[in-house]
Amino acid sequence: MKATVFRGEGNVQIEEVEDPEIENSEDVVIKITHTCICGSDLWFYRGHDDHEEGSVVGHEPMGVVEQTGDEVTSLEEGDRVLCPFSMSCGECEYCRKGIHTSCKNTGFFGEKSGAQAEKMRIEKADGTLVKVPERYKDNGKVLEKLLPLTDVMSTGHHAAVSANLEAGDTAVVIGDGAVGLCAVAASKRIGAEKIIAVGHHENRLEIAEEMGATHTVSSRGEEAVEEVMELTDGGANHVLECVGAQSALETAAQIVRPGGNIGYVGVPHLESADFVNEIFQKNISLQGGPAPVRNYIEELMKDVLQGTLDPSPVLDKKVSLDEVPEGYEAMDNREAIKVMVKIQE
Amino acid sequence: MKATVFRGEGNVQIEEVEDPEIENSEDVVIKITHTCICGSDLWFYRGHDDHEEGSVVGHEPMGVVEQTGDEVTSLEEGDRVLCPFSMSCGECEYCRKGIHTSCKNTGFFGEKSGAQAEKMRIEKADGTLVKVPERYKDNGKVLEKLLPLTDVMSTGHHAAVSANLEAGDTAVVIGDGAVGLCAVAASKRIGAEKIIAVGHHENRLEIAEEMGATHTVSSRGEEAVEEVMELTDGGANHVLECVGAQSALETAAQIVRPGGNIGYVGVPHLESADFVNEIFQKNISLQGGPAPVRNYIEELMKDVLQGTLDPSPVLDKKVSLDEVPEGYEAMDNREAIKVMVKIQE
Repeated sequence: MKATVFRGEGNVQIEEVEDPEIENSEDVVIKITHTCICGSDLWFYRGHDDHEEGSVVGHEPMGVVEQTGDEVTSLEEGDRVLCPFSMSCGECEYCRKGIHTSCKNTGFFGEKSGAQAEKMRIEKADGTLVKVPERYKDNGKVLEKLLPLTDVMSTGHHAAVSANLEAGDTAVVIGDGAVGLCAVAASKRIGAEKIIAVGHHENRLEIAEEMGATHTVSSRGEEAVEEVMELTDGGANHVLECVGAQSALETAAQIVRPGGNIGYVGVPHLESADFVNEIFQKNISLQGGPAPVRNYIEELMKDVLQGTLDPSPVLDKKVSLDEVPEGYEAMDNREAIKVMVKIQE
Repeated sequence: MKATVFRGEGNVQIEEVEDPEIENSEDVVIKITHTCICGSDLWFYRGHDDHEEGSVVGHEPMGVVEQTGDEVTSLEEGDRVLCPFSMSCGECEYCRKGIHTSCKNTGFFGEKSGAQAEKMRIEKADGTLVKVPERYKDNGKVLEKLLPLTDVMSTGHHAAVSANLEAGDTAVVIGDGAVGLCAVAASKRIGAEKIIAVGHHENRLEIAEEMGATHTVSSRGEEAVEEVMELTDGGANHVLECVGAQSALETAAQIVRPGGNIGYVGVPHLESADFVNEIFQKNISLQGGPAPVRNYIEELMKDVLQGTLDPSPVLDKKVSLDEVPEGYEAMDNREAIKVMVKIQE
């Protein structure tokens, strides 16, 4: 089959690799129909994170079940399925607790297994995959709206949940990347009254407004902090930090109201722990981590299907599998927020 | 009056200073009868924190009301009162929310005002002070048990609350100083089933057992982590971090169970933010800060008076006001866990 293979900094190529096969009785093999390029794929693409050369990349698959292992009970050939960026058994303590990213029995995809490819083997399929209802399984428009649930939409929702956001609250979302925009949509869905999107790109903040932001802040540093402080009358009780950079966590620490909550979902890239002293003095709750997508995907799907949630505006560029290298370039040059890869029907 | 004055690193002296007076109609002046020397006093004493030379020190007063401002409604001359280490109006948003340390209208004691002295002016007295019931106001034994509520006992309780500890849970307490020992007592009071105290001093861990620890761990570093992992079958859901040092937060991050809670109350002294990545990967809640003593003091007092809580074992040395400099030395040399200062009846 064809797959996207990492060949060193700034270099991904479409190559012929071996087809995946059922290895365990709880596996399925899916034919991938749609996937994405993720902001987090840029870490290895830009050489910021170590990554094995020769590995198959991508982690946001949607597809159709092609083969099922003998012990798979809930899926059959032809089912359209969404797959979280991390696999989960659904049965261990942490899956039961809703933290599927800490599953004791499986985890992230291996190096031979990536979603920017024609097929993929999925472990613990009953626990990992979520079936799209028959009625919508071939509705291309609906499928595009569901695709972001595999990662960024569920991650934005996790920021809101981790920030303890409830209906009627004010949310401040830091970051105007795909996750930040999805956090805006998640805040709206939860019923936040005021949603302030903080970012650096005017065009993305316009999309934030489409997705539910009531206010946007595009200034930087101290000026941005002052604007948010004014809009929130002295700080926000619920800050959704969707970047992970040092400056983003520092901004979060500055704008959060005493006794408030920071939900953080961007993988922290920190050089200093100074912001910890600031949140300590204000008795802040800092909570978050890799989103337990599998815990959220069904409730979010329900909203997408009933038309009250649509994260698809973050998918502002579409490519074929052969065009994936151009997709990476577009993301790298910030010409696209998030690239959808349409592999097959 | 006589007061303890900071005169530079390793040097506190008992000096004659001006008597405090009512300055605002909501003030009271108290005659201090009991106070303590705090582990946090050692920061300036050891030269680790900047501190104004010539300032009056101490922040854990218990005393008797001597004079009241015109607008004070709940207190009168002769009342025995406990005073938290931070003053609070009781009326602003943050006091109402229970985070009295973020009070909008008053705060920590000023440089002219310290508790290791004969008298003290207290601002916003109705909001700050808690009256000891008449029946116990001259019961010396009870007063000694109540004294730690002004800081360390309430701080230990705050660690438990911030770690989301509930009856039946397992608590791991990091630190065998006065706050750690009080966190053990707080965990027992809340009804924790298993309480594991982690520290480096055998004699203090013995006191931890007296105060409710069901297990103690005295090894260091990796070995301590392994012991706790074994005792908790892979990590604790509730970790009470009562030190604030880099190593303590790193240990907390290692031993906390995925999806668990770290309550931290030691002022963070951090050089690296690496532990943040560890708690992020495990979706941990990190919560804590300076304890809102005023929020806890009444419920804890009730337990002390009914005999179900006794933090007084942490007060293992007693001195007079004139002996305060020796008290500092004893704390500095780790010859005492916490020093009580008995100033007058």
